[in-house]
Amino acid sequence: MRNQAQSPHLSQAMAHAAKAVEEVLEQVLPKPHGLHGRVHEAMRYATFAGGKRLRPFLVVQSAGLFAVNPENVLRTAAAIEVLHTYSLVHDDLPCMDDDALRRGRPTAHIAFDEATAVLAGDALLTIAFEILAAAETHPSAEVRCRLVTRLAQAAGSNGMIGGQMIDMRAPDSAFGADEVMLLQRLKTGQLFEFACEAGPILAEAGSDHQNRLRAYARDMGLVFQITDDLLDVTGTAEKTGKAVGKDKDRGKATLVSIHGVEDARAEAGKIARRAVAALDAYGMEADALRALPPFLIDRES
Amino acid sequence: MRNQAQSPHLSQAMAHAAKAVEEVLEQVLPKPHGLHGRVHEAMRYATFAGGKRLRPFLVVQSAGLFAVNPENVLRTAAAIEVLHTYSLVHDDLPCMDDDALRRGRPTAHIAFDEATAVLAGDALLTIAFEILAAAETHPSAEVRCRLVTRLAQAAGSNGMIGGQMIDMRAPDSAFGADEVMLLQRLKTGQLFEFACEAGPILAEAGSDHQNRLRAYARDMGLVFQITDDLLDVTGTAEKTGKAVGKDKDRGKATLVSIHGVEDARAEAGKIARRAVAALDAYGMEADALRALPPFLIDRES
Repeated sequence: MRNQAQSPHLSQAMAHAAKAVEEVLEQVLPKPHGLHGRVHEAMRYATFAGGKRLRPFLVVQSAGLFAVNPENVLRTAAAIEVLHTYSLVHDDLPCMDDDALRRGRPTAHIAFDEATAVLAGDALLTIAFEILAAAETHPSAEVRCRLVTRLAQAAGSNGMIGGQMIDMRAPDSAFGADEVMLLQRLKTGQLFEFACEAGPILAEAGSDHQNRLRAYARDMGLVFQITDDLLDVTGTAEKTGKAVGKDKDRGKATLVSIHGVEDARAEAGKIARRAVAALDAYGMEADALRALPPFLIDRES
Repeated sequence: MRNQAQSPHLSQAMAHAAKAVEEVLEQVLPKPHGLHGRVHEAMRYATFAGGKRLRPFLVVQSAGLFAVNPENVLRTAAAIEVLHTYSLVHDDLPCMDDDALRRGRPTAHIAFDEATAVLAGDALLTIAFEILAAAETHPSAEVRCRLVTRLAQAAGSNGMIGGQMIDMRAPDSAFGADEVMLLQRLKTGQLFEFACEAGPILAEAGSDHQNRLRAYARDMGLVFQITDDLLDVTGTAEKTGKAVGKDKDRGKATLVSIHGVEDARAEAGKIARRAVAALDAYGMEADALRALPPFLIDRES
């Protein structure tokens, strides 16, 4: 109950982190210039589209368990957010999910064109690594290399991209709960895991901390995904800012289609409690992370 | 004359470097596995498609001016090659250059499908940074971060991607020689520059070396591009392994369409001599780099 009562504080903390990371994004993304300015415009259009900035929030909160220089934290958060943005731009393409609407606005390939969207996505992916490798992100080059390595693993062909590959096959496959869980763990879970690991990596804390926060992130990611699938079934386009009912239309199995709405909701609650329990070693400084899973369950968008 | 006489040796040296880098590529690219194995297959299909491996050769030769651990050199070369491969996969997409043929084989989106090609390209781009950031690539994390930074800059929205963005606009624009030169310098030149800078970066040599090799690479890249444009006009699909006459069909300005075949060939010769002169500070160890620009002028594919 404690956590649900904290949701107003959580919303404030998320808004605060979002604002801080957006200031860094404003600095690190190139200003449109030159004959190729169109790609800069598209990078910014896709990045500055609102959104909860959930991954940056996880970086800020996981770093908040330790003592980390705020600039280092926010640059790392910005890198994850541009990488996440690239994945949305490419996933929305006609040859992928073919979405025309994202957060209530035309997707990048609609607002610009397909070629520009592909290139803007490529450029956002590329700049994520440029941000992490820069000296301003951490005094230790070893730490910067670890961030680059882990982000590349989380986002690569055995991580997020692998999940999207499975997702593209999903409508033609009779996936059960195991396959759907694997898909989600790769497609969305890996990046959440990296966001939560970023704190201990930046703090050069031990692997115990990384393991704990990864366990938290894994469960939090599942809660995020189940509630996302629930919104696709029970939400409205007006509130979610995107088309709903897509999974069913596409014949895609989700944990909701497999277990039904009520059981999926119950499962989300169970996993949320397990996520919170993974943080038992921490004190009040982890309260925002604890409040997040129940907050996700109650969300309307 | 010395350089042209060396072309047989150059071909041997290029084949040798290609074989060495392909062994590393075989190791670093994931073996197809799991529900997402299709993306691994497409990554390998695009990477193991023959090709001159020109960028790896430049890494090997620029490192050969100094004393650098061969494993470090070849891993860096592999990273540049997978990044180059990603750019080919995405450039071939229907929304970009819409090419069905590359090196005499179906392009990735034809052999697989568009979604898989986008994802395989994304994954190749991502793994390039994973390779560079790994401890096996250099004992110094500072050096690895510098490699990541420079590759991201060379490949990013103010580098290769920016060049492709300009290229997409080219058919609708009345580009003159200056615009075409800028386009090429970004689209192909930046990656050549990074390949040649990689040697001094790996050797932790001074900025004088980097500047010299960048000047060489800039001119070598121009020679490469002018001869590529010449092949598009004068070559045959059989010899080049790809469609020819594309630039004219698309109404794209090139240095050949602006200056004519004869003047473009003369210009390529002049720039090739300037490229060779940039290496005056080096001895015989730079002979393969000296032989390359004349070799490019004489090539048939």
